[in-house]
Amino acid sequence: MEKESIGIGLMGLGIVGGQVAKVLLEKADILAEQAGCPLVLRKIKVLPADLDRPLAREIPAELFTTDTDEFFAEPGIDIMVEAIGGENPALEYLKRAISGGQHVVTPNKEVIAKHGAELHVLARKQGVGLRYEGSVGGGIPLIAPFKYDLVANKINGIYAIINGTTNYILTRMAREGIDFPSALKSAQELGYAEANPENDIEGIDAHYKLAILASLAFQADVRPGDIYHEGISRLDSRDFRYARELGFAIKLLAIAKLVNNSIEVRVHSAFVPEDSLLAKVDGVYNAILVEGDLVGKVLFFGEGAGALATSSAVTADVVSSAQDILHGVSDRAVRKSESARSIKPMAEIETQYYLRMNVADQSGVLAQISRVLGDNRISISAVIQKETDSAAQTAEIVITTHPAQEKAMQQALGELARLGVVKEINNFIRVES
Amino acid sequence: MEKESIGIGLMGLGIVGGQVAKVLLEKADILAEQAGCPLVLRKIKVLPADLDRPLAREIPAELFTTDTDEFFAEPGIDIMVEAIGGENPALEYLKRAISGGQHVVTPNKEVIAKHGAELHVLARKQGVGLRYEGSVGGGIPLIAPFKYDLVANKINGIYAIINGTTNYILTRMAREGIDFPSALKSAQELGYAEANPENDIEGIDAHYKLAILASLAFQADVRPGDIYHEGISRLDSRDFRYARELGFAIKLLAIAKLVNNSIEVRVHSAFVPEDSLLAKVDGVYNAILVEGDLVGKVLFFGEGAGALATSSAVTADVVSSAQDILHGVSDRAVRKSESARSIKPMAEIETQYYLRMNVADQSGVLAQISRVLGDNRISISAVIQKETDSAAQTAEIVITTHPAQEKAMQQALGELARLGVVKEINNFIRVES
Repeated sequence: MEKESIGIGLMGLGIVGGQVAKVLLEKADILAEQAGCPLVLRKIKVLPADLDRPLAREIPAELFTTDTDEFFAEPGIDIMVEAIGGENPALEYLKRAISGGQHVVTPNKEVIAKHGAELHVLARKQGVGLRYEGSVGGGIPLIAPFKYDLVANKINGIYAIINGTTNYILTRMAREGIDFPSALKSAQELGYAEANPENDIEGIDAHYKLAILASLAFQADVRPGDIYHEGISRLDSRDFRYARELGFAIKLLAIAKLVNNSIEVRVHSAFVPEDSLLAKVDGVYNAILVEGDLVGKVLFFGEGAGALATSSAVTADVVSSAQDILHGVSDRAVRKSESARSIKPMAEIETQYYLRMNVADQSGVLAQISRVLGDNRISISAVIQKETDSAAQTAEIVITTHPAQEKAMQQALGELARLGVVKEINNFIRVES
Repeated sequence: MEKESIGIGLMGLGIVGGQVAKVLLEKADILAEQAGCPLVLRKIKVLPADLDRPLAREIPAELFTTDTDEFFAEPGIDIMVEAIGGENPALEYLKRAISGGQHVVTPNKEVIAKHGAELHVLARKQGVGLRYEGSVGGGIPLIAPFKYDLVANKINGIYAIINGTTNYILTRMAREGIDFPSALKSAQELGYAEANPENDIEGIDAHYKLAILASLAFQADVRPGDIYHEGISRLDSRDFRYARELGFAIKLLAIAKLVNNSIEVRVHSAFVPEDSLLAKVDGVYNAILVEGDLVGKVLFFGEGAGALATSSAVTADVVSSAQDILHGVSDRAVRKSESARSIKPMAEIETQYYLRMNVADQSGVLAQISRVLGDNRISISAVIQKETDSAAQTAEIVITTHPAQEKAMQQALGELARLGVVKEINNFIRVES
């Protein structure tokens, strides 16, 4: 299609939206060359408060509107970039843009995780592209590899550190031996964690991202509701100490595996071998390890969030959308047909476990614990008696197991808690090696 | 374009070509779904010896030809996959296919490094695609990120471990303290190094790959001849010991940087900080660290070679070419215009240095050495006197420097060698931190 320029409409001028606007304006020459014609920012839907930001003064005032209908009435918008975030009204705006024949680009993980399948159907029907490279892993190319580079592979597994906030907190806990509340507080003071940190520390953000990756990797419709998720708030500095003694680091892992053609998806803290690359991913960085039948192991690493990195992904999506428009291609980026793979219930997954317990400091305790585990067909890999509290007459013991089924482990945990000699089960962490 | 199928012609049935044929035949269903129509292997150009391989019996005999003209006369070949390797006749075949209107896919680093610019011009003229994802880093997506995902970035630097053979040798030397000849011999016995290992151990393979990456990253025509390259054969087990003491690993690095709009490209062994991700890349694995102005640091890691991993990249390129053909898109994958950036002469690069020397064990030696370095405006970062040989009355000293210009360092090395007290300059390694 011969076009003199491609029109861009941007919804949202927050941290990410503002940076996207800056890139589109400041790098117009480079982007035009890459896309094949100028990309012209035609309208920006803002909130009144956005207009007070210093950035707003760098952008021609006539581009702004606070009115959604006015935004959608603007002629000549070929590509709509949604940078509002959250589920609503972003979902409504994306649908409205697609229904109006606009290609859409969004870094919104929540909308894509929850409504990606529906949006893909709509985009396909309308013959437009739906792109969301920025929704997972900031600027790290992650969506594109699944859609293009790894298409010949059967993907067997994904092991990902995809939440920078929790990885920052875990890194501080591991390095400094501090407890969770202190590490969280420090992360909040530094702006790495929000005032209400639940979304990050409870694994919610990570499970949205995993839904997106798993859907792509297995060509299935994996919804957030399908994904077991736990956060990191139960972790204690003692767990980090014992992990290190046993040769592990502790990470919040997002795991997706194909086991007997059924999909296993879960987000939780996990022991990972200290000499693995994932164990070396520190601070706010993200890393995603993918295992394919041809490619073997590939790992993608980088800044998982931040306005600059995310703007790299969003702008690349805009350029690809523009190329599609110029080439008259409509559905290159729209998901293909979906497989009918089932999601494995959490109770049926199999992994190894680390257990930390406070027990009565008396003989025969280990025999009782071993019997409970043995009765549930869980075999012990290592037992370490740690500190003894002679005043309380208790001892701390740490047990790691060979692979066992989650159901059996949960049953055993219930039985252990009812043993008179077990004072407290302090923690229970899955071991992925 | 409505097509019932896309025809593939394959040249070469060696290790990589054989694996590509297997994937095209065994994964035909998946690939058809991804591409949008069946991909049909129509002809395979083989050598007579290939027909004796067990694989050949799994492939319908009528697909084979040993005659190049017969191969090119075969009707219905839309995409030609070149898996012959080496410069000639691969170059000639690629030109012939492109001139005949076939899209081409090749994992041939030598041809692309030496003749990529010419082939791109020809492909653009013919309106066909030229793809070579498998030429660098096996199945790791590396070419695609530069062409699509990072297009909004100004790439400032690439730091890459892109030769698995040398990385395997260096890993063995670091872990076991063995010397270069033993590590090489072991790598040869295990099939990780060839009988004539020059291409790998002298940095030739790596400099081809760097030419390809640098050309993409900087949108320039960087030729192998532009790239300074050294191998790893001068490394001694003592260097590994001292590196570790100083907090470094030794890697064969391929470096491409943009410095004041001029391109710096070099391949040589280097000290890299032990806590960096590149230092953790062991064995035959590859890793490529890219620094962009928006994306920050991103790293791609995986198996850098091997038939399976390379077939992942080649097949993905075939699928993308097929999509282009079906969509009637001709030049999406063809390089855009090139910048006129100059290549920085090696003498002008600036980095830090490690020096290991054998000197006379007498007072005033260090003063003489310091004076030579100081006269060349090289400032010392650390000096360590290592072992003393009382019989020979010599001592080994290790010096690391602050950033200095290569020209100055080479001048200083010459002057040091002429000092009476310097018995031998044992090694000289660049430090990249």
